[in-house]
Amino acid sequence: MDKTKNELSRRDAIIGAGKIATGAAILSVGASGLLTPAKVKAASFPWGYKKLDLQEVGDIAYETWYKSFCCQAVVSGILKPLQKKIGEPYASLPLDAFKWGHGGAVGWGTLCGSMTGAGIATGFIAGHEGEKILNDVIAWYADTELPIYKPAHPKSHFKNVNRSDSPLCHVSVGKWMNKEGVKFFSPQRKERCARISADVAMRTAKLLNDWKDGTYVPAHGSNVKEHGITTQLNCMECHGDDVPEPKM
Amino acid sequence: MDKTKNELSRRDAIIGAGKIATGAAILSVGASGLLTPAKVKAASFPWGYKKLDLQEVGDIAYETWYKSFCCQAVVSGILKPLQKKIGEPYASLPLDAFKWGHGGAVGWGTLCGSMTGAGIATGFIAGHEGEKILNDVIAWYADTELPIYKPAHPKSHFKNVNRSDSPLCHVSVGKWMNKEGVKFFSPQRKERCARISADVAMRTAKLLNDWKDGTYVPAHGSNVKEHGITTQLNCMECHGDDVPEPKM
Repeated sequence: MDKTKNELSRRDAIIGAGKIATGAAILSVGASGLLTPAKVKAASFPWGYKKLDLQEVGDIAYETWYKSFCCQAVVSGILKPLQKKIGEPYASLPLDAFKWGHGGAVGWGTLCGSMTGAGIATGFIAGHEGEKILNDVIAWYADTELPIYKPAHPKSHFKNVNRSDSPLCHVSVGKWMNKEGVKFFSPQRKERCARISADVAMRTAKLLNDWKDGTYVPAHGSNVKEHGITTQLNCMECHGDDVPEPKM
Repeated sequence: MDKTKNELSRRDAIIGAGKIATGAAILSVGASGLLTPAKVKAASFPWGYKKLDLQEVGDIAYETWYKSFCCQAVVSGILKPLQKKIGEPYASLPLDAFKWGHGGAVGWGTLCGSMTGAGIATGFIAGHEGEKILNDVIAWYADTELPIYKPAHPKSHFKNVNRSDSPLCHVSVGKWMNKEGVKFFSPQRKERCARISADVAMRTAKLLNDWKDGTYVPAHGSNVKEHGITTQLNCMECHGDDVPEPKM
Protein backbone atom coordinates (compact mmCIF):
# COMPACT_ATOMS: atom_id res chain seq x y z
CA MET A 1 0.00 0.00 0.00
CA ASP A 2 1.32 3.47 -0.92
CA LYS A 3 1.75 5.18 2.42
CA THR A 4 2.38 8.62 0.89
CA LYS A 5 -0.86 8.40 -1.06
CA ASN A 6 -2.71 7.49 2.12
CA GLU A 7 -1.17 10.42 3.95
CA LEU A 8 -2.37 12.74 1.18
CA SER A 9 -5.85 11.20 1.07
CA ARG A 10 -6.10 11.65 4.77
CA ARG A 11 -4.93 15.26 4.54
CA ASP A 12 -7.52 15.92 1.80
CA ALA A 13 -10.22 14.41 3.98
CA ILE A 14 -9.25 16.69 6.82
CA ILE A 15 -9.27 19.78 4.62
CA GLY A 16 -12.60 18.68 3.18
CA ALA A 17 -14.00 18.46 6.65
CA GLY A 18 -13.08 22.10 7.15
CA LYS A 19 -11.35 21.64 10.47
CA ILE A 20 -8.18 20.26 12.03
CA ALA A 21 -9.21 18.50 15.20
CA THR A 22 -7.11 17.63 18.21
CA GLY A 23 -7.56 14.02 19.25
CA ALA A 24 -9.33 13.03 16.04
CA ALA A 25 -10.88 9.59 15.60
CA ILE A 26 -10.90 7.67 12.31
CA LEU A 27 -13.77 5.94 10.58
CA SER A 28 -12.80 3.56 7.79
CA VAL A 29 -15.01 3.19 4.73
CA GLY A 30 -15.81 -0.45 4.12
CA ALA A 31 -16.65 -2.17 0.84
CA SER A 32 -20.33 -1.32 1.37
CA GLY A 33 -19.54 2.39 1.40
CA LEU A 34 -20.88 2.64 4.96
CA LEU A 35 -18.78 4.07 7.72
CA THR A 36 -17.52 1.58 10.27
CA PRO A 37 -16.61 3.27 13.55
CA ALA A 38 -13.18 2.30 14.79
CA LYS A 39 -13.34 3.78 18.26
CA VAL A 40 -16.46 5.89 18.18
CA LYS A 41 -17.70 6.99 21.57
CA ALA A 42 -21.48 6.63 21.57
CA ALA A 43 -23.60 9.68 22.35
CA SER A 44 -24.81 9.84 25.92
CA PHE A 45 -28.40 8.80 26.56
CA PRO A 46 -30.98 10.31 26.74
CA TRP A 47 -30.30 12.47 23.70
CA GLY A 48 -31.70 15.71 25.14
CA TYR A 49 -33.83 18.55 23.90
CA LYS A 50 -33.94 22.14 22.71
CA LYS A 51 -37.19 24.06 22.92
CA LEU A 52 -39.30 23.83 19.77
CA ASP A 53 -41.66 26.15 17.94
CA LEU A 54 -45.08 24.51 18.43
CA GLN A 55 -46.53 25.77 15.14
CA GLU A 56 -43.60 24.27 13.21
CA VAL A 57 -44.03 20.97 15.10
CA GLY A 58 -47.73 20.84 14.22
CA ASP A 59 -47.19 21.78 10.59
CA ILE A 60 -44.55 19.07 10.07
CA ALA A 61 -46.76 16.45 11.75
CA TYR A 62 -49.79 17.43 9.65
CA GLU A 63 -47.89 17.26 6.36
CA THR A 64 -46.08 14.05 7.30
CA TRP A 65 -49.38 12.29 8.04
CA TYR A 66 -50.29 12.44 4.34
CA LYS A 67 -47.06 10.60 3.49
CA SER A 68 -46.57 8.17 6.40
CA PHE A 69 -49.55 8.40 8.78
CA CYS A 70 -49.90 9.17 12.47
CA CYS A 71 -46.96 7.56 14.26
CA GLN A 72 -44.27 8.83 11.90
CA ALA A 73 -46.10 12.17 11.76
CA VAL A 74 -45.61 12.80 15.47
CA VAL A 75 -42.06 11.41 15.54
CA SER A 76 -41.20 13.71 12.62
CA GLY A 77 -42.97 16.77 14.05
CA ILE A 78 -40.76 16.59 17.13
CA LEU A 79 -37.52 14.98 15.94
CA LYS A 80 -37.09 16.66 12.53
CA PRO A 81 -36.60 20.09 14.14
CA LEU A 82 -34.21 18.48 16.65
CA GLN A 83 -32.24 16.94 13.77
CA LYS A 84 -31.57 20.54 12.67
CA LYS A 85 -31.19 22.17 16.10
CA ILE A 86 -29.09 19.46 17.79
CA GLY A 87 -27.69 17.41 14.87
CA GLU A 88 -26.28 14.03 15.92
CA PRO A 89 -27.38 11.56 17.12
CA TYR A 90 -30.84 12.71 15.97
CA ALA A 91 -29.61 13.50 12.46
CA SER A 92 -28.76 9.85 11.71
CA LEU A 93 -32.01 8.42 13.11
CA PRO A 94 -34.11 7.11 10.19
CA LEU A 95 -37.61 8.48 10.85
CA ASP A 96 -39.01 6.07 8.25
CA ALA A 97 -38.46 3.33 10.85
CA PHE A 98 -41.57 4.50 12.72
CA LYS A 99 -44.35 4.22 10.17
CA TRP A 100 -45.58 0.86 11.55
CA GLY A 101 -47.54 2.47 14.44
CA HIS A 102 -50.27 3.71 12.07
CA GLY A 103 -53.88 2.73 12.77
CA GLY A 104 -53.08 1.54 16.28
CA ALA A 105 -50.17 -0.69 15.09
CA VAL A 106 -50.49 -1.72 11.43
CA GLY A 107 -54.25 -1.26 11.58
CA TRP A 108 -55.06 -3.26 14.73
CA GLY A 109 -56.80 -0.28 16.33
CA THR A 110 -54.81 -0.34 19.59
CA LEU A 111 -52.85 2.73 20.83
CA CYS A 112 -53.51 5.67 18.48
CA GLY A 113 -50.26 5.83 16.52
CA SER A 114 -49.86 9.51 17.28
CA MET A 115 -49.11 8.53 20.88
CA THR A 116 -46.83 5.66 19.84
CA GLY A 117 -44.96 8.44 18.06
CA ALA A 118 -45.00 10.57 21.21
CA GLY A 119 -43.59 7.61 23.16
CA ILE A 120 -40.79 7.06 20.67
CA ALA A 121 -39.87 10.76 20.61
CA THR A 122 -39.95 11.26 24.39
CA GLY A 123 -38.04 7.99 24.82
CA PHE A 124 -35.06 9.28 22.84
CA ILE A 125 -35.30 12.79 24.28
CA ALA A 126 -35.79 12.12 27.97
CA GLY A 127 -35.50 8.35 28.56
CA HIS A 128 -37.32 7.10 31.65
CA GLU A 129 -38.22 10.69 32.61
CA GLY A 130 -40.16 11.01 29.35
CA GLU A 131 -42.71 8.48 30.61
CA LYS A 132 -44.41 11.09 32.77
CA ILE A 133 -44.84 13.34 29.76
CA LEU A 134 -46.23 10.47 27.67
CA ASN A 135 -48.60 9.56 30.50
CA ASP A 136 -49.91 13.13 30.57
CA VAL A 137 -50.23 13.26 26.77
CA ILE A 138 -52.33 10.08 26.77
CA ALA A 139 -54.59 11.36 29.57
CA TRP A 140 -55.02 14.65 27.72
CA TYR A 141 -55.80 12.86 24.42
CA ALA A 142 -58.58 10.79 26.01
CA ASP A 143 -60.08 13.81 27.77
CA THR A 144 -59.99 16.50 25.05
CA GLU A 145 -62.26 17.45 22.16
CA LEU A 146 -60.01 16.83 19.16
CA PRO A 147 -58.81 17.91 16.68
CA ILE A 148 -57.85 21.47 17.63
CA TYR A 149 -55.13 22.17 15.02
CA LYS A 150 -56.19 24.19 11.96
CA PRO A 151 -53.94 23.78 8.91
CA ALA A 152 -53.15 26.85 6.82
CA HIS A 153 -54.11 24.91 3.70
CA PRO A 154 -56.53 22.11 4.65
CA LYS A 155 -56.62 19.09 2.34
CA SER A 156 -60.21 18.38 3.37
CA HIS A 157 -62.95 19.82 5.61
CA PHE A 158 -65.22 18.28 8.26
CA LYS A 159 -67.69 19.40 10.92
CA ASN A 160 -67.12 17.52 14.15
CA VAL A 161 -64.65 17.34 16.97
CA ASN A 162 -64.88 14.53 19.50
CA ARG A 163 -63.70 13.42 22.93
CA SER A 164 -62.58 9.80 22.66
CA ASP A 165 -62.47 8.89 26.37
CA SER A 166 -59.88 6.34 25.18
CA PRO A 167 -56.36 6.22 23.76
CA LEU A 168 -57.40 3.39 21.43
CA CYS A 169 -57.43 4.18 17.71
CA HIS A 170 -60.50 2.01 17.11
CA VAL A 171 -62.55 3.69 19.83
CA SER A 172 -61.35 7.21 19.05
CA VAL A 173 -61.79 7.08 15.28
CA GLY A 174 -64.93 4.92 15.47
CA LYS A 175 -66.80 7.41 17.68
CA TRP A 176 -65.74 10.28 15.46
CA MET A 177 -66.69 8.48 12.21
CA ASN A 178 -70.11 7.78 13.71
CA LYS A 179 -70.58 11.43 14.69
CA GLU A 180 -69.36 12.76 11.36
CA GLY A 181 -71.19 10.07 9.37
CA VAL A 182 -68.22 9.16 7.17
CA LYS A 183 -66.29 6.03 6.23
CA PHE A 184 -62.75 5.14 7.25
CA PHE A 185 -61.34 5.71 3.78
CA SER A 186 -63.03 9.12 3.40
CA PRO A 187 -60.97 12.31 2.94
CA GLN A 188 -62.63 13.76 6.05
CA ARG A 189 -61.40 10.90 8.26
CA LYS A 190 -57.88 11.24 6.87
CA GLU A 191 -57.92 14.98 7.53
CA ARG A 192 -59.16 14.42 11.08
CA CYS A 193 -56.32 11.98 11.82
CA ALA A 194 -53.71 14.29 10.23
CA ARG A 195 -54.90 17.16 12.44
CA ILE A 196 -54.93 14.98 15.57
CA SER A 197 -51.35 13.98 14.81
CA ALA A 198 -50.49 17.69 14.77
CA ASP A 199 -52.31 18.13 18.08
CA VAL A 200 -50.47 15.27 19.79
CA ALA A 201 -47.09 16.41 18.46
CA MET A 202 -47.76 19.98 19.65
CA ARG A 203 -49.02 18.86 23.07
CA THR A 204 -45.97 16.65 23.55
CA ALA A 205 -43.62 19.45 22.47
CA LYS A 206 -45.46 21.88 24.77
CA LEU A 207 -44.80 19.62 27.78
CA LEU A 208 -41.21 19.06 26.64
CA ASN A 209 -40.71 22.84 26.39
CA ASP A 210 -42.03 23.20 29.95
CA TRP A 211 -39.77 20.35 31.04
CA LYS A 212 -36.77 22.09 29.47
CA ASP A 213 -37.76 25.30 31.28
CA GLY A 214 -38.01 23.40 34.56
CA THR A 215 -41.69 24.28 34.93
CA TYR A 216 -43.20 20.88 33.97
CA VAL A 217 -45.26 19.26 36.73
CA PRO A 218 -46.68 15.79 35.96
CA ALA A 219 -50.48 15.88 36.20
CA HIS A 220 -51.80 12.34 35.67
CA GLY A 221 -51.10 9.59 38.19
CA SER A 222 -50.43 5.89 37.64
CA ASN A 223 -53.39 3.95 36.22
CA VAL A 224 -51.80 0.70 37.39
CA LYS A 225 -51.33 1.80 40.99
CA GLU A 226 -54.83 3.26 41.15
CA HIS A 227 -56.71 0.39 39.48
CA GLY A 228 -54.56 -2.67 40.17
CA ILE A 229 -54.19 -3.41 36.47
CA THR A 230 -52.90 -1.68 33.35
CA THR A 231 -55.95 0.08 31.98
CA GLN A 232 -57.62 2.98 30.28
CA LEU A 233 -60.30 4.73 32.34
CA ASN A 234 -63.55 4.19 30.41
CA CYS A 235 -64.21 0.85 32.18
CA MET A 236 -67.98 0.71 31.59
CA GLU A 237 -67.63 1.22 27.86
CA CYS A 238 -66.52 -2.42 27.48
CA HIS A 239 -67.55 -3.94 30.83
CA GLY A 240 -70.98 -2.26 31.12
CA ASP A 241 -72.21 -2.38 34.71
CA ASP A 242 -70.13 -5.48 35.36
CA VAL A 243 -66.76 -3.80 35.96
CA PRO A 244 -64.51 -6.26 37.82
CA GLU A 245 -63.25 -5.16 41.23
CA PRO A 246 -59.53 -4.44 41.09
CA LYS A 247 -57.40 -6.81 43.18
CA MET A 248 -54.83 -4.56 44.82
CA MET B 1 -2.43 26.67 17.16
CA ASP B 2 0.66 24.45 16.96
CA LYS B 3 0.23 22.66 13.63
CA THR B 4 3.07 20.17 14.26
CA LYS B 5 1.51 19.12 17.56
CA ASN B 6 -1.83 18.59 15.84
CA GLU B 7 -0.18 16.49 13.11
CA LEU B 8 1.37 14.29 15.80
CA SER B 9 -1.86 14.03 17.79
CA ARG B 10 -3.65 12.96 14.67
CA ARG B 11 -0.99 10.37 13.86
CA ASP B 12 -1.29 9.00 17.42
CA ALA B 13 -5.02 8.76 17.04
CA ILE B 14 -4.62 6.81 13.82
CA ILE B 15 -2.17 4.38 15.39
CA GLY B 16 -4.51 4.07 18.37
CA ALA B 17 -7.35 3.13 16.06
CA GLY B 18 -5.22 0.25 14.82
CA LYS B 19 -5.70 0.87 11.12
CA ILE B 20 -4.75 3.23 8.31
CA ALA B 21 -7.85 3.60 6.18
CA THR B 22 -8.09 4.74 2.57
CA GLY B 23 -10.56 7.57 2.24
CA ALA B 24 -10.81 8.12 5.97
CA ALA B 25 -13.29 10.53 7.50
CA ILE B 26 -12.54 12.60 10.58
CA LEU B 27 -14.70 13.09 13.63
CA SER B 28 -13.70 15.94 15.92
CA VAL B 29 -14.09 15.65 19.67
CA GLY B 30 -16.02 18.61 21.02
CA ALA B 31 -15.90 20.12 24.47
CA SER B 32 -18.60 17.68 25.61
CA GLY B 33 -16.37 14.72 24.77
CA LEU B 34 -18.94 13.50 22.23
CA LEU B 35 -18.00 12.85 18.64
CA THR B 36 -19.39 15.29 16.13
CA PRO B 37 -19.50 13.79 12.65
CA ALA B 38 -17.91 16.03 10.06
CA LYS B 39 -18.94 14.29 6.89
CA VAL B 40 -20.43 11.04 8.08
CA LYS B 41 -22.42 9.19 5.46
CA ALA B 42 -25.59 7.92 7.12
CA ALA B 43 -26.25 4.19 7.04
CA SER B 44 -28.75 3.11 4.41
CA PHE B 45 -32.27 2.36 5.65
CA PRO B 46 -33.65 -0.17 6.50
CA TRP B 47 -30.74 -1.40 8.59
CA GLY B 48 -30.99 -5.08 7.59
CA TYR B 49 -30.78 -8.41 9.34
CA LYS B 50 -28.68 -11.48 10.02
CA LYS B 51 -30.40 -14.67 11.10
CA LEU B 52 -30.64 -15.04 14.87
CA ASP B 53 -30.55 -17.95 17.31
CA LEU B 54 -34.10 -18.08 18.67
CA GLN B 55 -33.12 -19.46 22.07
CA GLU B 56 -30.67 -16.58 22.57
CA VAL B 57 -33.36 -14.09 21.52
CA GLY B 58 -35.83 -15.55 24.02
CA ASP B 59 -33.29 -15.70 26.85
CA ILE B 60 -32.27 -12.05 26.40
CA ALA B 61 -35.92 -10.93 26.28
CA TYR B 62 -36.80 -12.90 29.41
CA GLU B 63 -33.89 -11.52 31.42
CA THR B 64 -34.40 -7.96 30.13
CA TRP B 65 -38.05 -8.00 31.24
CA TYR B 66 -36.96 -8.08 34.88
CA LYS B 67 -34.94 -4.90 34.33
CA SER B 68 -37.01 -2.88 31.87
CA PHE B 69 -40.29 -4.71 31.13
CA CYS B 70 -41.93 -5.99 27.95
CA CYS B 71 -41.23 -3.45 25.21
CA GLN B 72 -37.52 -3.06 25.87
CA ALA B 73 -37.35 -6.84 26.46
CA VAL B 74 -38.42 -7.63 22.89
CA VAL B 75 -36.38 -4.80 21.35
CA SER B 76 -33.33 -6.10 23.23
CA GLY B 77 -33.95 -9.77 22.44
CA ILE B 78 -33.79 -8.99 18.73
CA LEU B 79 -31.49 -5.96 18.46
CA LYS B 80 -28.82 -6.85 21.05
CA PRO B 81 -27.64 -9.86 19.00
CA LEU B 82 -27.72 -7.65 15.87
CA GLN B 83 -25.57 -5.06 17.67
CA LYS B 84 -22.94 -7.81 17.90
CA LYS B 85 -23.51 -9.48 14.52
CA ILE B 86 -23.91 -6.34 12.39
CA GLY B 87 -22.42 -3.56 14.54
CA GLU B 88 -23.36 -0.06 13.37
CA PRO B 89 -25.85 1.49 13.13
CA TYR B 90 -27.44 -0.95 15.60
CA ALA B 91 -24.51 -0.68 18.02
CA SER B 92 -25.17 3.03 18.71
CA LEU B 93 -28.93 2.67 19.18
CA PRO B 94 -29.77 3.23 22.87
CA LEU B 95 -32.12 0.35 23.74
CA ASP B 96 -33.07 2.16 26.96
CA ALA B 97 -35.10 4.53 24.76
CA PHE B 98 -37.79 1.87 24.44
CA LYS B 99 -38.87 1.17 27.99
CA TRP B 100 -41.96 3.41 27.74
CA GLY B 101 -44.06 0.77 25.93
CA HIS B 102 -44.48 -1.26 29.13
CA GLY B 103 -47.99 -2.12 30.33
CA GLY B 104 -49.56 -1.13 27.01
CA ALA B 105 -47.79 2.29 26.96
CA VAL B 106 -46.79 3.53 30.44
CA GLY B 107 -49.52 1.38 32.01
CA TRP B 108 -52.51 2.42 29.87
CA GLY B 109 -53.23 -1.20 28.91
CA THR B 110 -53.26 -0.63 25.13
CA LEU B 111 -50.97 -2.61 22.78
CA CYS B 112 -49.05 -5.23 24.80
CA GLY B 113 -45.58 -3.67 24.97
CA SER B 114 -43.99 -6.86 23.69
CA MET B 115 -45.52 -6.06 20.30
CA THR B 116 -44.61 -2.38 20.50
CA GLY B 117 -41.09 -3.78 20.84
CA ALA B 118 -41.62 -6.06 17.85
CA GLY B 119 -42.80 -3.04 15.83
CA ILE B 120 -39.75 -0.99 16.79
CA ALA B 121 -37.35 -3.84 15.96
CA THR B 122 -38.95 -4.77 12.63
CA GLY B 123 -39.17 -1.07 11.74
CA PHE B 124 -35.40 -0.62 11.96
CA ILE B 125 -34.66 -4.01 10.38
CA ALA B 126 -37.06 -4.08 7.46
CA GLY B 127 -38.82 -0.69 7.23
CA HIS B 128 -42.20 -0.78 5.54
CA GLU B 129 -41.72 -4.48 4.67
CA GLY B 130 -41.53 -5.23 8.40
CA GLU B 131 -45.20 -4.28 8.80
CA LYS B 132 -46.33 -7.63 7.36
CA ILE B 133 -44.24 -9.45 9.94
CA LEU B 134 -45.61 -7.29 12.77
CA ASN B 135 -49.16 -7.89 11.50
CA ASP B 136 -48.56 -11.65 11.62
CA VAL B 137 -46.98 -11.46 15.09
CA ILE B 138 -50.02 -9.59 16.45
CA ALA B 139 -52.47 -12.07 14.89
CA TRP B 140 -50.45 -14.97 16.32
CA TYR B 141 -50.32 -13.35 19.79
CA ALA B 142 -54.10 -12.95 19.94
CA ASP B 143 -54.69 -16.50 18.73
CA THR B 144 -52.14 -18.51 20.75
CA GLU B 145 -52.11 -20.03 24.24
CA LEU B 146 -49.27 -18.10 25.90
CA PRO B 147 -46.72 -18.22 27.37
CA ILE B 148 -44.83 -21.05 25.66
CA TYR B 149 -41.23 -20.14 26.61
CA LYS B 150 -39.68 -22.04 29.54
CA PRO B 151 -36.74 -20.30 31.23
CA ALA B 152 -33.78 -22.41 32.31
CA HIS B 153 -33.93 -20.75 35.73
CA PRO B 154 -37.49 -19.48 36.37
CA LYS B 155 -37.84 -16.57 38.79
CA SER B 156 -41.38 -17.70 39.65
CA HIS B 157 -43.86 -20.46 38.78
CA PHE B 158 -47.52 -20.44 37.70
CA LYS B 159 -50.12 -22.86 36.38
CA ASN B 160 -52.04 -21.32 33.51
CA VAL B 161 -51.56 -20.38 29.91
CA ASN B 162 -54.19 -18.31 28.14
CA ARG B 163 -55.38 -17.21 24.72
CA SER B 164 -56.04 -13.46 24.85
CA ASP B 165 -58.10 -13.06 21.64
CA SER B 166 -56.71 -9.51 21.79
CA PRO B 167 -53.42 -7.63 21.41
CA LEU B 168 -54.40 -5.32 24.29
CA CYS B 169 -52.33 -5.58 27.47
CA HIS B 170 -55.39 -4.98 29.69
CA VAL B 171 -57.45 -7.73 28.06
CA SER B 172 -54.59 -10.20 27.78
CA VAL B 173 -53.23 -9.83 31.29
CA GLY B 174 -56.67 -9.36 32.83
CA LYS B 175 -57.99 -12.67 31.48
CA TRP B 176 -54.86 -14.47 32.59
CA MET B 177 -54.90 -12.90 36.10
CA ASN B 178 -58.51 -14.01 36.46
CA LYS B 179 -57.69 -17.57 35.37
CA GLU B 180 -54.59 -17.79 37.58
CA GLY B 181 -56.28 -16.00 40.49
CA VAL B 182 -53.41 -13.60 41.13
CA LYS B 183 -52.92 -9.84 41.43
CA PHE B 184 -51.09 -7.58 39.00
CA PHE B 185 -48.13 -7.03 41.32
CA SER B 186 -47.72 -10.78 42.04
CA PRO B 187 -44.50 -12.62 41.10
CA GLN B 188 -46.56 -15.01 38.97
CA ARG B 189 -47.93 -12.18 36.81
CA LYS B 190 -44.47 -10.74 36.35
CA GLU B 191 -43.10 -14.14 35.34
CA ARG B 192 -45.96 -14.64 32.87
CA CYS B 193 -45.24 -11.29 31.18
CA ALA B 194 -41.48 -11.95 31.09
CA ARG B 195 -42.12 -15.30 29.36
CA ILE B 196 -44.58 -13.76 26.90
CA SER B 197 -41.94 -11.17 26.02
CA ALA B 198 -39.59 -14.05 25.21
CA ASP B 199 -42.33 -15.67 23.09
CA VAL B 200 -43.01 -12.51 21.09
CA ALA B 201 -39.30 -11.85 20.54
CA MET B 202 -38.77 -15.43 19.37
CA ARG B 203 -41.83 -15.42 17.09
CA THR B 204 -40.72 -12.14 15.52
CA ALA B 205 -37.16 -13.43 15.03
CA LYS B 206 -38.53 -16.70 13.57
CA LEU B 207 -40.45 -14.76 10.91
CA LEU B 208 -37.44 -12.49 10.31
CA ASN B 209 -35.25 -15.58 9.84
CA ASP B 210 -37.74 -16.93 7.28
CA TRP B 211 -37.81 -13.50 5.62
CA LYS B 212 -34.01 -13.51 5.39
CA ASP B 213 -34.16 -17.01 3.87
CA GLY B 214 -36.74 -15.82 1.34
CA THR B 215 -39.32 -18.31 2.64
CA TYR B 216 -41.55 -15.88 4.58
CA VAL B 217 -45.13 -15.70 3.32
CA PRO B 218 -47.42 -13.18 5.08
CA ALA B 219 -50.37 -15.02 6.63
CA HIS B 220 -52.74 -12.41 8.12
CA GLY B 221 -54.63 -9.97 5.91
CA SER B 222 -55.55 -6.32 6.54
CA ASN B 223 -58.00 -5.78 9.38
CA VAL B 224 -58.81 -2.33 8.00
CA LYS B 225 -59.63 -3.52 4.50
CA GLU B 226 -61.71 -6.40 5.81
CA HIS B 227 -63.65 -4.52 8.50
CA GLY B 228 -63.72 -0.92 7.26
CA ILE B 229 -62.05 0.35 10.43
CA THR B 230 -58.82 -0.23 12.35
CA THR B 231 -59.71 -3.01 14.77
CA GLN B 232 -58.88 -6.11 16.68
CA LEU B 233 -61.09 -9.11 15.92
CA ASN B 234 -62.93 -9.86 19.17
CA CYS B 235 -65.75 -7.42 18.35
CA MET B 236 -68.41 -8.94 20.63
CA GLU B 237 -66.16 -8.78 23.69
CA CYS B 238 -66.79 -5.03 23.94
CA HIS B 239 -69.82 -4.53 21.67
CA GLY B 240 -71.80 -7.58 22.82
CA ASP B 241 -74.48 -8.48 20.25
CA ASP B 242 -74.59 -4.89 19.08
CA VAL B 243 -71.56 -4.91 16.79
CA PRO B 244 -71.82 -1.93 14.40
CA GLU B 245 -71.98 -2.73 10.70
CA PRO B 246 -68.77 -1.67 9.00
CA LYS B 247 -69.19 1.10 6.45
CA MET B 248 -66.96 0.09 3.57
